[in-house]
Amino acid sequence: MTGPSSRRPSRRQLLGYAGAAAAGAAVTGGTVALGKETPHAAEPVVARDLSPYGDHQPAVAAATPKHAELVALNLLGSTDRAALGRLMRLWTADIVALTAGRPAPGDTAPELAVPNAALTVTVGLGPRVFTLPGLTTAKPRGLDALPVMRHDRLLPAWSGGDLLILVGADDAVSVVHAVRRLVADAAPFAKAVWRQTGFWNGTGPDGKPVTGRNLFGQVDGTGNPAAGSPEFGATVWATGPEWFTGGTTLVVRRITMNLDTWDELTRSEQERAVGRKLSTGAPLNGTAEHDELDLEARDADGRLLIAENAHARLSHHSVNDGRRIFRKGLNYVHDTGATRESGLIFLSYQADVAGQFLPMLARLDAADALNEWTTTIGSAVFAVPPGFREGGWLAQRLLS
Amino acid sequence: MTGPSSRRPSRRQLLGYAGAAAAGAAVTGGTVALGKETPHAAEPVVARDLSPYGDHQPAVAAATPKHAELVALNLLGSTDRAALGRLMRLWTADIVALTAGRPAPGDTAPELAVPNAALTVTVGLGPRVFTLPGLTTAKPRGLDALPVMRHDRLLPAWSGGDLLILVGADDAVSVVHAVRRLVADAAPFAKAVWRQTGFWNGTGPDGKPVTGRNLFGQVDGTGNPAAGSPEFGATVWATGPEWFTGGTTLVVRRITMNLDTWDELTRSEQERAVGRKLSTGAPLNGTAEHDELDLEARDADGRLLIAENAHARLSHHSVNDGRRIFRKGLNYVHDTGATRESGLIFLSYQADVAGQFLPMLARLDAADALNEWTTTIGSAVFAVPPGFREGGWLAQRLLS
Repeated sequence: MTGPSSRRPSRRQLLGYAGAAAAGAAVTGGTVALGKETPHAAEPVVARDLSPYGDHQPAVAAATPKHAELVALNLLGSTDRAALGRLMRLWTADIVALTAGRPAPGDTAPELAVPNAALTVTVGLGPRVFTLPGLTTAKPRGLDALPVMRHDRLLPAWSGGDLLILVGADDAVSVVHAVRRLVADAAPFAKAVWRQTGFWNGTGPDGKPVTGRNLFGQVDGTGNPAAGSPEFGATVWATGPEWFTGGTTLVVRRITMNLDTWDELTRSEQERAVGRKLSTGAPLNGTAEHDELDLEARDADGRLLIAENAHARLSHHSVNDGRRIFRKGLNYVHDTGATRESGLIFLSYQADVAGQFLPMLARLDAADALNEWTTTIGSAVFAVPPGFREGGWLAQRLLS
Repeated sequence: MTGPSSRRPSRRQLLGYAGAAAAGAAVTGGTVALGKETPHAAEPVVARDLSPYGDHQPAVAAATPKHAELVALNLLGSTDRAALGRLMRLWTADIVALTAGRPAPGDTAPELAVPNAALTVTVGLGPRVFTLPGLTTAKPRGLDALPVMRHDRLLPAWSGGDLLILVGADDAVSVVHAVRRLVADAAPFAKAVWRQTGFWNGTGPDGKPVTGRNLFGQVDGTGNPAAGSPEFGATVWATGPEWFTGGTTLVVRRITMNLDTWDELTRSEQERAVGRKLSTGAPLNGTAEHDELDLEARDADGRLLIAENAHARLSHHSVNDGRRIFRKGLNYVHDTGATRESGLIFLSYQADVAGQFLPMLARLDAADALNEWTTTIGSAVFAVPPGFREGGWLAQRLLS
């Protein structure tokens, strides 16, 4: 295989469509048709498309997309540190093009790349990457598969993975197209092992952003630190090891939700399990979504308003030594013939999985009232490398 | 079971949330929690929500939604003509509420009903409905399961069905919520046998409507008659039997598309198979999407520009005795673990399945170049009753 393994792609190659197309075609060998007519790239309309560049991968702090697909891939046996670097350079070129609404290098369906779809791509590295020769000392602290919780019913089909692609957009066609390109370009290096598609409605009827609701009808994600706040930075961005500064870790948990038994509850039973009001997401001691939880508040009979086993209490940062996570859920439905499984693709970003996420997970597993209607069937953990700048590439400090 | 079977729901019951909720709760018996607190219905924001009323079910002529789900249900043995009428009245009340962004009667997740999602519901009746006592003489002409074509590889899991619900919206959460309500309310009468979810991008980067593309990258649907034109009416709306006037028939075909082998073609090979340009959807004899097909045009070497087996030729109304269909595709992906199936949920509306659709289907089956990359794995046919007016209900003229 010929490829750009021995040279750094120039800024022109990464940014110019023609140059990037040639680089991509060379690396993927016979799998793309070099002789194809490629249309002129449309002038991108940048109004709603995020820049692919920055200190951080840009989708992490952005709003949850309307549609998303996650694909986990396992490395082929032949993929060593250098090959992984080649893949990251290929993906970087793909991401720069696709997020601007331009065809990826060697794109076989270039018309499906459209600007203004707010397409984003986030890439993660699973724990096994850090067992490759040359990478063992670079492993972020605590980046290990999560221990199996008592309530977990993990299926291998939804768990683990050496690499993650998380593509989001306002438009499902754009998501499917981008994923197809990224997975195709990875073929010499890695093979898809699971795919999860999800959706979210983070826009109110008046067009303004809202937190959004899961399929139980709950407002889901109220407790998050505000993007851009100092608290957000401290929660999400890793400060080491050096290559990983500005990166984060991502936990992906596939949680089935039993809508049928949930629907058998009264609304007050549902609200008691969560500790928040269904109507607004306000804590049961308050009236507005972002009111502070009062974990000591009691009703006239002396009972805690937010029960001991309420989800909102057990997941609150005040009972987690002040440590927070940044969570972004995606609703999913998965059909097998006439049978539908419904649930949440739970995504949690944090600087430190072991320090921030695991204690909370253990506490929820031990006592969360919601465990009666939810079951985690998939679990995976990834290091999300920092962002890249023009001319740079994903995980460059790790792999160059 | 108590219910409104012996009385016609009043306009107030169908339109008023409180009245409709009581009616719905009574009919579905123990399956909804009567004692639940129901939130005040929000004032609907009607800007983007279609009226549920009219001569026709409103989604038929409307643009393809961004997201849609189709559910086919089979009648329970106990569901006779009268029971089917009860179900249609229940669904009508659901549809009136849900399309305005209000909770359905007895809604167990009322907060998931949001206005301005452009939600629509279309209901269809499969051929077996017209074998029920009292309905055999009402069967629309030609409403039979399609004959199995030579290239078909039909799976029972994606075929047939006594009833159809087709829910579309701009937002996937709204679709999932509406489907859940409609299927739950149908539980005493019918059981889901297949579900298909699809998506479409009918909006250009500048926000203006476009025809949209399938996952081969083709502009798909250019040949349709313009909604609202006399030609559209003649193509789509049935004129009999009397109860069915203003109705239409809907063919649902699940067509897998082999993206991998398609991608091995050059662009000119792809365009030759379709007979249109990938860039614009223009016929190979033209330059703009809506240019007329010239089926006699030849290149400098005397070869037909639009090949004898090109899809655009064989599906063109001029080779179908001038008869047209109105087609609306939905892209789909369906995952089983790491394996992805991609394709198109092909929807064709026409006044007369046997007269308009079948001859074209037979011609395509015999010779369409696209048959090499596509396989139909599901097939179903439904009569789509006319619309209803305020105080009326779905299929009222058939079932009252």
